[in-house]
Amino acid sequence: MKILMIGAGGAIGKIVTAALRDHEVITVGRNTGAIMADISSETALESLFKQVSNVDAIICTAGDSITNSLSAMNKAPFMVGIQQKLWPQINLVLSGMKYLKDNGSITLISGKMGEFPAKGSSGKAFVNGAINSFVMAAAQEMPRGIRLNVISPSKVSDIGGDELIAAYIKCLETAINGEIIRVGYNKQ
Amino acid sequence: MKILMIGAGGAIGKIVTAALRDHEVITVGRNTGAIMADISSETALESLFKQVSNVDAIICTAGDSITNSLSAMNKAPFMVGIQQKLWPQINLVLSGMKYLKDNGSITLISGKMGEFPAKGSSGKAFVNGAINSFVMAAAQEMPRGIRLNVISPSKVSDIGGDELIAAYIKCLETAINGEIIRVGYNKQ
Repeated sequence: MKILMIGAGGAIGKIVTAALRDHEVITVGRNTGAIMADISSETALESLFKQVSNVDAIICTAGDSITNSLSAMNKAPFMVGIQQKLWPQINLVLSGMKYLKDNGSITLISGKMGEFPAKGSSGKAFVNGAINSFVMAAAQEMPRGIRLNVISPSKVSDIGGDELIAAYIKCLETAINGEIIRVGYNKQ
Repeated sequence: MKILMIGAGGAIGKIVTAALRDHEVITVGRNTGAIMADISSETALESLFKQVSNVDAIICTAGDSITNSLSAMNKAPFMVGIQQKLWPQINLVLSGMKYLKDNGSITLISGKMGEFPAKGSSGKAFVNGAINSFVMAAAQEMPRGIRLNVISPSKVSDIGGDELIAAYIKCLETAINGEIIRVGYNKQ
């Protein structure tokens, strides 16, 4: 498969990229990667997909949000999560659904704090919750057999690499669509 | 109780405001209400709470987001939900936690599409999911016994008024904190 990998340099991205060595993985990032592109920009994504065609899958393991006590939060740190984790991933779906090959797949990233938030996670929890709900909604409207799922990992240090890789392979290679794949924790 | 009611003119706001007639309800809106204030503005809320003191509870039943097919969505309609439903409610919590009376309560609004999205609801679902996760996170950090909950209603036309009112009374008068109260639908 030809796979666009956003966030290949991050902790999760490194593990997943290594596991996909039998595929053609094209790394994309704002400042690093085989192709540099700001995925929060609609025009940057259009131009990316004109440059790289016949893409089978997009995996995004990148996205920042702010952890801080609620009393120290104001608008700016909340907006970091929107601008650096939520909107870029929505944007990836809006472009990807136009340019991916038939029956391709898109795999986003959210996180455990969306469902089981700890103290200090308000700036992270709301972004993860937003991404999970977006995926459940948008997956119903993917064209041409394209599938959309989201990996919701616990803290990377708490996750087994095998479980993480299995989650990504499941998104790439099975028929699942609209699912939240929890890694390192369970729903209940 | 002295209750700040945001969205008193909306379908849900009218039902709830009528049910709270034994309380001192102060309606707040951008263009309507006893007090006019843009709740998305941090300075407007500061000035609101300096004008109205000893508030026991805040109820927000207001907030817009866009319903449209995914293929017709782009950045602008997604941002409507952030700017008109998500951020104003986060902002209400950040100010309310400073100015509410001890043991006061804040009740936000999300919606069924956050958990059970239908086609065309991507612009609504992600906002509701964000609010639910924010409430679960932020409720753990409320100071001075203040409680934070969220009502997640189904479509207003599908809801019984009694069930809706009971949900708001539960948030006002019981000890619940950090809960998502589903109205007109169940979790499973």
